[in-house]
Amino acid sequence: MQVTMTRAGAGARKKKGLIIVHTGNGKGKTTAALGLALRASGCGMKVLMLQFFKGKWKCGELRSAPKLDNFEICPMGKGFTWESKDVEVDKAMVRNAWRAAQEKILSGNYDVVVLDEINYALGYGFLPLEDVVEFLRKKPAMLHVVLTGRNAKPEIVEIADLVTEMRQVKHPFEQGIGAQRGIEF
Amino acid sequence: MQVTMTRAGAGARKKKGLIIVHTGNGKGKTTAALGLALRASGCGMKVLMLQFFKGKWKCGELRSAPKLDNFEICPMGKGFTWESKDVEVDKAMVRNAWRAAQEKILSGNYDVVVLDEINYALGYGFLPLEDVVEFLRKKPAMLHVVLTGRNAKPEIVEIADLVTEMRQVKHPFEQGIGAQRGIEF
Repeated sequence: MQVTMTRAGAGARKKKGLIIVHTGNGKGKTTAALGLALRASGCGMKVLMLQFFKGKWKCGELRSAPKLDNFEICPMGKGFTWESKDVEVDKAMVRNAWRAAQEKILSGNYDVVVLDEINYALGYGFLPLEDVVEFLRKKPAMLHVVLTGRNAKPEIVEIADLVTEMRQVKHPFEQGIGAQRGIEF
Repeated sequence: MQVTMTRAGAGARKKKGLIIVHTGNGKGKTTAALGLALRASGCGMKVLMLQFFKGKWKCGELRSAPKLDNFEICPMGKGFTWESKDVEVDKAMVRNAWRAAQEKILSGNYDVVVLDEINYALGYGFLPLEDVVEFLRKKPAMLHVVLTGRNAKPEIVEIADLVTEMRQVKHPFEQGIGAQRGIEF
């Protein structure tokens, strides 16, 4: 078989639900998912963000989301794992979040589902990677799924359509400036 | 003078208005600025986004922003520069946007001002870099300013507190998938 390539993807423009990954050690992974939600909701799309770990702070996004049409945020976790005393509780919470995610993804009620910080859950081994990959491969064709968190697994990058690494070039922490409300959380 | 370092910035946590840069060839620069706006507005902060180039499409963010408290988006440009027939018109537009930006930054009416895609304006030489750097150095101390766009100038990175490079790892364009409403714009 011979394939004539002109330039990458210069052929027909297809449409499909994308698997999008925001990873890297820099800021902007969850933030860009929030921006995507704001934009998509403005286009009349239905967006759900499931937060796998957050839940401690009253974050700005939890107060803004209800003002937008069709944008729900569900904080599934009770706080950051590294503050937890019981890893089994964290694991159970993450698995519960993943069950909810699967149900929501299959429900047909959303155009975009954000699995916020799921990469950490996969990194810690709290979720079986093969099951997540297998499930995402068979996701509804037009649904967009966004996965955030550092150290995205290569298997996740492999099945993704759009992967961005947010790379930290400079951080105010280095100058002794603390996390600031409205900016960092 | 002897300075004892424990770890980077482990001393007192200061607060200050940050100069934040989103650059790189990947997606998520404007999107993360939108997410930051959503989060900050949820914390009761006043946010303005000045778009230096966009203005052609009815973007999702233009419809979502009015629903949030204290979030204004002003598209200053009429479209993408590379579609323009008259570079002088583009230059005038960008300079007009920069005049508006300076006025808004000094007005005391905002907590966060996003200069969306200003890096392109600096890259094209449409704005004098030294003037922009000089102005930003003297910005109101508690105001956060976000600058987006590829190829941030080293002088901008130099004065910035927080710089993230959005690096493209994988893009659906490579698979022949076109830009999709609600996701790309």
